[in-house]
Amino acid sequence: MLDDLIARLTAGDRRALARMVTLVENNDPASRAALAQLHALGGKAHIVGVTGSPGAGKSTLVMQLVRELRRRDQRVAIVAVDPTSPFTGGAILGDRIRMQDLVGDPNVYIRSMASRGSVGGLSSATRDAVRVLDAAGFDTIIIETVGAGQAEVEIVRAAQTIVVVTVPGMGDDIQALKAGILEIADCFCVNKADRPGADQAAAELRMLLSLDTQRDKDAWKPPILKTTAATGAGVPELADALGRHLAYLRESGQIVVRGERQARSEILALLYQALLAKLGATLGPAHFDQIVAAVAARQSDPYSAASVIARALGIALPSEDDATG
Amino acid sequence: MLDDLIARLTAGDRRALARMVTLVENNDPASRAALAQLHALGGKAHIVGVTGSPGAGKSTLVMQLVRELRRRDQRVAIVAVDPTSPFTGGAILGDRIRMQDLVGDPNVYIRSMASRGSVGGLSSATRDAVRVLDAAGFDTIIIETVGAGQAEVEIVRAAQTIVVVTVPGMGDDIQALKAGILEIADCFCVNKADRPGADQAAAELRMLLSLDTQRDKDAWKPPILKTTAATGAGVPELADALGRHLAYLRESGQIVVRGERQARSEILALLYQALLAKLGATLGPAHFDQIVAAVAARQSDPYSAASVIARALGIALPSEDDATG
Repeated sequence: MLDDLIARLTAGDRRALARMVTLVENNDPASRAALAQLHALGGKAHIVGVTGSPGAGKSTLVMQLVRELRRRDQRVAIVAVDPTSPFTGGAILGDRIRMQDLVGDPNVYIRSMASRGSVGGLSSATRDAVRVLDAAGFDTIIIETVGAGQAEVEIVRAAQTIVVVTVPGMGDDIQALKAGILEIADCFCVNKADRPGADQAAAELRMLLSLDTQRDKDAWKPPILKTTAATGAGVPELADALGRHLAYLRESGQIVVRGERQARSEILALLYQALLAKLGATLGPAHFDQIVAAVAARQSDPYSAASVIARALGIALPSEDDATG
Repeated sequence: MLDDLIARLTAGDRRALARMVTLVENNDPASRAALAQLHALGGKAHIVGVTGSPGAGKSTLVMQLVRELRRRDQRVAIVAVDPTSPFTGGAILGDRIRMQDLVGDPNVYIRSMASRGSVGGLSSATRDAVRVLDAAGFDTIIIETVGAGQAEVEIVRAAQTIVVVTVPGMGDDIQALKAGILEIADCFCVNKADRPGADQAAAELRMLLSLDTQRDKDAWKPPILKTTAATGAGVPELADALGRHLAYLRESGQIVVRGERQARSEILALLYQALLAKLGATLGPAHFDQIVAAVAARQSDPYSAASVIARALGIALPSEDDATG
């Protein structure tokens, strides 16, 4: 049944695609075996993350970008992620409804994902949805978030190219630059660039970037683009910049480095999940809460507690037993 | 020998104290058994974290705060942490040298800690140094960081009361508010308040705080203080605010909530460390790198890889084996 679903979605069947995304979003046990197969089929799409201040016009900008990429004959998928709300829809869906031309296009696929209780859960669900869409043969997959908090940053880290959208006016810039966004951006858009202050906002970003000593001097210099999503001005230049960044990633070998970094963090996150599951199955949450409370109340200490638990889980090393036993 | 060291440091022997801090800083195996004992002796100190933009005058402000707390007959320790530099000293030490009155005071203890390769390592070393100082009977322990990046935020999270220091002028404010600092602050200082723009900076902070919907409406409202570290103006008010926050934590029961949150994250971090150690001992780093590279190259997938590793480590659950096997 799963093999049939995979065969149909790779052949372009949209209902099979939607069905599979739902399976992975619900973290259905059957989906893991499918994801293993889908992972092997992927690796061709350009994965673009779009984040930035709430109210910066990200949804409209993304829709204009999709139109531009369609003009360039690409198949495009969007995963719109809202870590702040347990409901899909809201602002994200509202914008979509106005884009009737895209809704009917078989080469455009839009999916909203909402909070699943934990950021970790939502970001792994997003990564898996991207995996399905990649296997389905989309050329560009855009991960769009509603805000620019720490949760959003974690989610867009699954992308190869990260676009940070801001607007003229200081308050919004501060919001956008929270949570270490400056460091992860591959491209900046000052959107609503028809408003006063766009040049100043771009200059401020340039100044901030020049202060960022973490960036390698010889590496990619993030362009700062001015866009007006309402009219589409600057959007072709954004599409060009995305293409240049992908070319840079390929030529520099950074695409392999980023892919391995991602694989490593995904495997470690899955192992940490397995550790928590084993912890729950071995001790039970109530017992773990008791241990935590005893440490906080100084009846025990974190080292002894962790050592006892590690032994119960079978992950203690012999030397560790010696040191604490 | 360790018991003797602990007895001497709790009796006020500064050489024993320095020796123990060095043991925990070097993550000496012997230190874990000592930390277990020291943890039981602690819990009396007020732990204050101070973070904020580089150049905001944090070191001078901390020194003035120490003088004020000394006037209030407190014993005060400072752990000055620089995650950006592998060397102790630099700006942090430079400021200290000018504070000769404090250096000779037996009721003041100053310790610099520098990068240990990983943020996780530095923040656990900081927590352990605080644990030693708490057991040694200091009334207030100040964790001071050089900047306001994500590393610094993780480090000051070990505190009960977090002070964010900023200065008049937008560029610096943006730096200070990066990395989700707004959400964790219990108290703001607009330092160098004799400069133009201090009132405006305070008003901007007030506005940003009012936008922060994450904060519980009934909970602590972070005060926004104006200080001039060079003259000491506003420092008694800062000391008062710290005392009020500690009283709030105790009366509201938040001190227990924060203590348990901290114990939980510390135990989980130690378990994750144990997992990584077991991973290294079981597979070896080169083999793990091969697995990561195979996943990135789509010869394997993260789920199968994690499942195989979890089984090798003995943390796979039976149901997990069923789903993937």
